[in-house]
Amino acid sequence: MELHGSNLIGGATAATGERAFAAVDPRNGESLAPSFAEATEGEIDRALELATEAHRALKALPAEQRADFLDAIAAEIDGLGDELLDRASLETGISLDRLTAERGRTTGQLQLFAGMVREGVDRVVRDAGFTNRRIALGPVAVFGASNFPLAFSVAGGDTASAFAAGCPVIVKAHPSHPGTSELVGRAVLAAAAKTGMPEGVFSLVHGQGPEAGKVLVKHPDTRAVAFTGSLAGGRALFDLASRRPNPVPLFAEMGSTNPMFLLPNALAARRAEIADGLFDSLTIGVGQYCTNPGLVFVARGPDADALLGDLRARVAAAEPGTMLNAGIASAYRVALGGLSALAGVEVVGAETGTAAESACSAKPALLVTDADLWLAEARLREEIFGPATLVVRADAPGDFVCLAEKLAGQLTATVHADEGDHELCRELIPFLEERAGRVVFNGFPTGVRVNAAMHHGGPYPATTDPRFTSVGTAAIDRFLRPVCYQGVPDELLG
Amino acid sequence: MELHGSNLIGGATAATGERAFAAVDPRNGESLAPSFAEATEGEIDRALELATEAHRALKALPAEQRADFLDAIAAEIDGLGDELLDRASLETGISLDRLTAERGRTTGQLQLFAGMVREGVDRVVRDAGFTNRRIALGPVAVFGASNFPLAFSVAGGDTASAFAAGCPVIVKAHPSHPGTSELVGRAVLAAAAKTGMPEGVFSLVHGQGPEAGKVLVKHPDTRAVAFTGSLAGGRALFDLASRRPNPVPLFAEMGSTNPMFLLPNALAARRAEIADGLFDSLTIGVGQYCTNPGLVFVARGPDADALLGDLRARVAAAEPGTMLNAGIASAYRVALGGLSALAGVEVVGAETGTAAESACSAKPALLVTDADLWLAEARLREEIFGPATLVVRADAPGDFVCLAEKLAGQLTATVHADEGDHELCRELIPFLEERAGRVVFNGFPTGVRVNAAMHHGGPYPATTDPRFTSVGTAAIDRFLRPVCYQGVPDELLG
Repeated sequence: MELHGSNLIGGATAATGERAFAAVDPRNGESLAPSFAEATEGEIDRALELATEAHRALKALPAEQRADFLDAIAAEIDGLGDELLDRASLETGISLDRLTAERGRTTGQLQLFAGMVREGVDRVVRDAGFTNRRIALGPVAVFGASNFPLAFSVAGGDTASAFAAGCPVIVKAHPSHPGTSELVGRAVLAAAAKTGMPEGVFSLVHGQGPEAGKVLVKHPDTRAVAFTGSLAGGRALFDLASRRPNPVPLFAEMGSTNPMFLLPNALAARRAEIADGLFDSLTIGVGQYCTNPGLVFVARGPDADALLGDLRARVAAAEPGTMLNAGIASAYRVALGGLSALAGVEVVGAETGTAAESACSAKPALLVTDADLWLAEARLREEIFGPATLVVRADAPGDFVCLAEKLAGQLTATVHADEGDHELCRELIPFLEERAGRVVFNGFPTGVRVNAAMHHGGPYPATTDPRFTSVGTAAIDRFLRPVCYQGVPDELLG
Repeated sequence: MELHGSNLIGGATAATGERAFAAVDPRNGESLAPSFAEATEGEIDRALELATEAHRALKALPAEQRADFLDAIAAEIDGLGDELLDRASLETGISLDRLTAERGRTTGQLQLFAGMVREGVDRVVRDAGFTNRRIALGPVAVFGASNFPLAFSVAGGDTASAFAAGCPVIVKAHPSHPGTSELVGRAVLAAAAKTGMPEGVFSLVHGQGPEAGKVLVKHPDTRAVAFTGSLAGGRALFDLASRRPNPVPLFAEMGSTNPMFLLPNALAARRAEIADGLFDSLTIGVGQYCTNPGLVFVARGPDADALLGDLRARVAAAEPGTMLNAGIASAYRVALGGLSALAGVEVVGAETGTAAESACSAKPALLVTDADLWLAEARLREEIFGPATLVVRADAPGDFVCLAEKLAGQLTATVHADEGDHELCRELIPFLEERAGRVVFNGFPTGVRVNAAMHHGGPYPATTDPRFTSVGTAAIDRFLRPVCYQGVPDELLG
């Protein structure tokens, strides 16, 4: 399939704007054909006009047909075969193996939501002549994420859950992988055509800068927004959504340091296993997962020293990886450079200057500091997006609760604990659950699963609303709202 | 019980500020003793400090004890007897009969939430080694409303649902009924003491101006806010909550015109009954219900003329009522004055100038205009808080859908329809459910019920988030957030 580089506005292509951009191969910095047209305000207007009509048309269709649409998207994505994975790998530097797994997660979650739709998502409650059911919010704007070109992008979890809710979707493609986005976007349109979806159920707009996204978030007909990305980007869009004349919900999944507490008995019993697991969790995806374990608390002592020895050796011997784009790699180096200049912070691994092999090359880094400095220096509490982790040495395990109290909102918080650590766990967990959306026990935070019990969210700045998740079946709750019908005959409810 | 006029900060009284104010009897404009101390920033800080500790302490208590607390509040409120109703009537001008009913609703919803807590509000979901449960958000700020001194104030639905969720509550008392607020606040504290609640589970702060409320909404330890009141007030607080360094959810239930569509067969068959119901719904509580029917659509013709004849007669003969305070009554008169100056708007009833019997006196008003003018003149689409309704004459029932499309977000939308109107209903209801939180069929919107199917909410400007309700058992969803536990042994979950 030859890429055309146009926006997809409902069923039509559109490239009326003057600005265009190309994707870049992060492995070598070369531009990839074709060039992609940035969406204009007029094109976005048209997408919302069609989406608003589609929202009404969708209501009149049986839920089964919407479920078929979700299944058909999965089938169309599979039908793209290697072409999709090859392009995604070119644009992101992600290996074909990882992309194959990510495609499976993407089609799996589309099918999971299809199953939900067949079971009914309206959650009808009747009480004393009143009937309550959930209906779709209306057109949803979805921002593709750089780090999951399939699972958190054009037909990722946000789009799947919005479609499942009955909401039309307008995706703002991430400019790092516009070709992948076009391929998946065309797969969505093919599925829409095959299952009789109304035109406007889906549009895809491109933009390298923030303009197209801003227009989308501020558009009066946009009813909700889902975003996965940086704290700065998510907050800027949240501010736009909140300052609209008619504010709309904006769910942004943003940064997280994903703290991990290594309790003394667990560390003594399983030091090497923990070091291996931590290193793997830290470096998977070149550290570009939102759940990357960027912060580890240990109590001083021989076990902590041995753990640090293991980690220093693993990090020093690590091969560089290719980050998603030059901006991310540069930000990673700058952040590490800033912290390594602090007295009291040891840095192992990672070129912090400009000496990297290529603009997108990055090596893992281990940073080590003491609890006092971590408490005093706000920069040490910020997320570093990339394969870096900061080990904070406390004087004693009893200090963990005070340290936990200083944590900002997190997607995850992890505890490694053995039987003998349970008393401390009972003190610690109430503080961790207050600050995190997921509490992991004797595991590593990068193991997100798409199921009914998952919560991928957490207090600010992990997200803009801790009551919602962007992963798992509950992700649909972002896009439905209850309506109460008082005395309305069922046959009039459609 | 003698009123002391102090803030209640946890279990202690506090009146360290320099500013004070008194309640006013709206029937005669006289000040009521005692004077109430406005809360200082230091007092509010202390309330949040105690609430944060109480939040943790609450987690460690069995749910049963929290349920007992809710039941005990209801019992303490009943125990206040006539003293409470007399003071509330003095401060608000509301009749003792209505206040008796409102007290029943208030204690009833406390008991309803107690029952929910006993059944469990954590909604546990298990899937593949993950456990998801809902936990309390943390300290909640509740703003008392002027129009329901019991049911939407100190121990009203917001407070009851927040306590049920396990959240400590800090109430900002409405300055129109500070004495009622103190009585109920002391009842809450008595219930807390009897059921072993931690200090700080409840605080009550006074303020005549907006300062205390602003401090409360901006406080870093406040985790959520519930507000019922005007669009201007709700939006101002929403902006504060959204602009915090760490934004928090603010649920504001604000204005609504509560449109009603009278379909031709229903109007022909039940004109007199509809006129009576509309007049009663319009004037109950001197029109100061959020669900007051402020907008009625009819199609021109003899039935519409006859309906208007009925309404003109009812309105012209109506006795004046006493509004809640001089500010509300003045705003009502000013709004009516503005609309009556528009060419093409007929106004029946209501003194629009300053000639009212007393500062808080108000008579019902009927306004009549044509659809063209309603579409052209934005002022005609704004809420008038008070016993006024605007009847809009369309050329034909077929125009109702286009008119519905121009409606802003609403708490309710009502249709009166007989069998012969069902075809039009099927067209109209999809537009109404998109714009309203509750669709009423052959009834009147002022009949809010506290149950599991109620939704008291709706798209902006009816509320700041259409996904939540402030009435009914689902009101608790505003104050809970899911947490996922991965591999955590149940015995560590507390």
